Amino acid sequence: MSSSLLEELKPLFYPRNVAVVGVSNRGESAGNRFLAVMRQFGYKGAIYPVHPTATEIDGLKAYPSVRAIPADVDFVNISAPARFVPQIMSDCVAKGVKAAEIFTAGFREVSEEGRKLEMEIKKIAAGKIRIVGPNCFGVYSPRGGLTLLPGPNYPRESGDIGVFSQSGGWVTDLIWGADAFGVKFSKVVSYGNGIDLNEASLLEYFEQDPETGVIAAYLEGVNDGPRFRDVVTRVNKKKPVIIWKGGLSETGKRAVNSHTGSLAGSKYTWDAFFKQTGAVRAQGFEELLDTAAIFHYLKPGSYRNLAFIGGGGGVGVAAGDICEDFGMKIPPSTAAIIERMSELIPAQGTSIKNPFDTGSPNTPGDILRKMIRVVSGWSAVDAIIVNRLFFYGLKQLMGLDVLDEEQRIQGILDSKQGLSKPLMVVLEELSYGLDRIEMERERRAARDRLLQAGIYVTDSVYRAVRALNNVSTYYERQGFMKSPS
Amino acid sequence: MSSSLLEELKPLFYPRNVAVVGVSNRGESAGNRFLAVMRQFGYKGAIYPVHPTATEIDGLKAYPSVRAIPADVDFVNISAPARFVPQIMSDCVAKGVKAAEIFTAGFREVSEEGRKLEMEIKKIAAGKIRIVGPNCFGVYSPRGGLTLLPGPNYPRESGDIGVFSQSGGWVTDLIWGADAFGVKFSKVVSYGNGIDLNEASLLEYFEQDPETGVIAAYLEGVNDGPRFRDVVTRVNKKKPVIIWKGGLSETGKRAVNSHTGSLAGSKYTWDAFFKQTGAVRAQGFEELLDTAAIFHYLKPGSYRNLAFIGGGGGVGVAAGDICEDFGMKIPPSTAAIIERMSELIPAQGTSIKNPFDTGSPNTPGDILRKMIRVVSGWSAVDAIIVNRLFFYGLKQLMGLDVLDEEQRIQGILDSKQGLSKPLMVVLEELSYGLDRIEMERERRAARDRLLQAGIYVTDSVYRAVRALNNVSTYYERQGFMKSPS
Repeated sequence: MSSSLLEELKPLFYPRNVAVVGVSNRGESAGNRFLAVMRQFGYKGAIYPVHPTATEIDGLKAYPSVRAIPADVDFVNISAPARFVPQIMSDCVAKGVKAAEIFTAGFREVSEEGRKLEMEIKKIAAGKIRIVGPNCFGVYSPRGGLTLLPGPNYPRESGDIGVFSQSGGWVTDLIWGADAFGVKFSKVVSYGNGIDLNEASLLEYFEQDPETGVIAAYLEGVNDGPRFRDVVTRVNKKKPVIIWKGGLSETGKRAVNSHTGSLAGSKYTWDAFFKQTGAVRAQGFEELLDTAAIFHYLKPGSYRNLAFIGGGGGVGVAAGDICEDFGMKIPPSTAAIIERMSELIPAQGTSIKNPFDTGSPNTPGDILRKMIRVVSGWSAVDAIIVNRLFFYGLKQLMGLDVLDEEQRIQGILDSKQGLSKPLMVVLEELSYGLDRIEMERERRAARDRLLQAGIYVTDSVYRAVRALNNVSTYYERQGFMKSPS
Repeated sequence: MSSSLLEELKPLFYPRNVAVVGVSNRGESAGNRFLAVMRQFGYKGAIYPVHPTATEIDGLKAYPSVRAIPADVDFVNISAPARFVPQIMSDCVAKGVKAAEIFTAGFREVSEEGRKLEMEIKKIAAGKIRIVGPNCFGVYSPRGGLTLLPGPNYPRESGDIGVFSQSGGWVTDLIWGADAFGVKFSKVVSYGNGIDLNEASLLEYFEQDPETGVIAAYLEGVNDGPRFRDVVTRVNKKKPVIIWKGGLSETGKRAVNSHTGSLAGSKYTWDAFFKQTGAVRAQGFEELLDTAAIFHYLKPGSYRNLAFIGGGGGVGVAAGDICEDFGMKIPPSTAAIIERMSELIPAQGTSIKNPFDTGSPNTPGDILRKMIRVVSGWSAVDAIIVNRLFFYGLKQLMGLDVLDEEQRIQGILDSKQGLSKPLMVVLEELSYGLDRIEMERERRAARDRLLQAGIYVTDSVYRAVRALNNVSTYYERQGFMKSPS
């Protein structure tokens, strides 16, 4: 691929208009759903439904074929049954369409006949139309006004994460999951079987795309292993490439075959792949999401030495165990740090040795602010994690003189001014019952305030440390040995 | 310990009255908090605050010492400063008190002087008073009307899980976390430094306690390794003993020392301990909680062969990978199962090979019910996991003709009648934003309905499979090779 990819894929990511093939005049098909979702999402260009007989679909003028549309067409969304797709693709070529996404399933993942159909479509489109799919959810491109199913309410704002995924389901989770952490996307491409645009070409697009700073992917198989390896190696030096490879187990491989008809490859091959390319490896959905989020929030650097500020001794013990599992460190307090911390924390039922344990979540916000400032000046520490200082519902549970969570959040926000180290907050969701939904509302409100101030918030120490290790390892390979200051 | 332990600890778990030492007449101390919490929780016996000068504390008649209380006293709660505790204990002995919990911290975990104080207290109480603590949150015994801090709103209902823990923080999380999964406790003991009642004696109590069916523990160190190993080996043959051992890392060990002054022991020693005793090993809070919950919900048996019924191909791939990591299996469909499933699931964008993928969470409840019934008759499968058929907010997101979640829940409930295999449901929480709190409310309501019908619900396939493996391994060691039917 050449540097013209950015230009070539403009009709895919920023189409001036969209034709939709596979709509029904009873309003029930995937095409109708896509029509409705696009309009709800606020796509600004013209939308042309295609239907053999109807003159109007869902209030829009319909055309009997793509060729019959009285305008140049940039982009076509296809959800018609598999057997019709070659003819539709021929029409698109004749019309001069530039890009297409094929939602339709029932190709190589179900039968040999399906595989042949795929080859036929590929041949018809070759060199003329760039295709996403088939067997996919398509393209989400907030700046281009495009969304994928089921996304009428996905964020309209653009962000710096670019995603390509063979699974549409994981992509829908990712967009929502990331939104809750204040992380947004440049483009997300669910590409399913990937007969044309695949892992290698999409990665090259994101390499060039100035909107994209971090790249995250869910893969089931690759079409051209050696090429993909080379592209990942090159791109990963410029922008972090995080890959979750699904289907490394025997059962997973069988499921991959039923899902996208891909060859999943062996564990051995993929271990070697990650070693050779230096790509960041995620081993599940949460790890993919968290790692992308931390790349977004933190400046380039290594964050291996951590200070934990929290309430609870058992929590500190667990943090120590988790850190060691991921090769992270919790340096013991120096005499100077002990002296300063002992002025802030009571002597008993606490710890001033890092992890710092205030003994209770009921800690005044101002103390919290001062503790963060003390650690901020400690050169052995790369990042600060505040955990277990929030216990939503403590007031409600205790029914006593418990300080407002509000002033603790404020303490953290106040400490952020001019802070030289990254600060992260762990806000646990403790699976409270239905009758405690108010606590969850408060937790989410607090999370949003912190995120808006640029402070990364996550659900557990485990998730924070696992992702921090990934990010630190990436930057260490690039020669960063400390956090930036 | 003899079988009289059940009798001996009656004053600890079911006290007829409680004296509280360490209250302030300004209402701010831990003792006052405990007073308030006990009364809110609804403790039925007499409560006697002890204060050197006050005649009334928080509306209750106060006494200058334990000895001055005009009644036999069963149980004393102590939160006075460490240096006063030996004298208080002497008073308790003189009074004939049977049991005490010492909240006070500042003993061996902070200094050599603290260690000496502990030894002194231990000597005074030896053979006369059974002690929980010091440096702990105490005892939660719903049938005895006792709660620990900060638990005025902990469940009043009793359950079959018995817990002992060196951390009070983890115990508060556990009680709340378990409540959301419909799991309740016989007794929970936060025993901190454990100078008298410790891991071995508490385990022997739970061995004898007819209320307790499953035992879960968080440990930092043990006081008498060989004895504990013998007790665990014996008890674990009768009731599952699940242990999370914190502080196996270097940093974790340091934190253990600051927390409960325990000797954490080496990884090697603990690996051998689990091998020798057969105790169920949990490596964190969630695993401890989930494993206890599955022991509660499932009959004795091995559940290594699973069927997954869900919407989404990527989710099935991930389930396969997770199962292999834990030694669980997803048997491929037989020809008969394929035939019956193909009548229920569309041919494209789906899978009938196990994991079963309906292609969309928008699946009618009746189809779901029928799918469960098909798998129910399949002898190669030990348990059924329904996942990813719930997508709260799908309706809201799609704004289209999406079926109610309600009828899917109903489909599952209907399938349960006479079902010969255990059924579990994964209901993901996708960290939706503050503006989506309604979805979380719906999810919790659905979870509660399923739990009430005896169907275990958890947050992720990972959590379900990890805990199922623990439970299956336990029962396999006892000779169960299949699920009960």
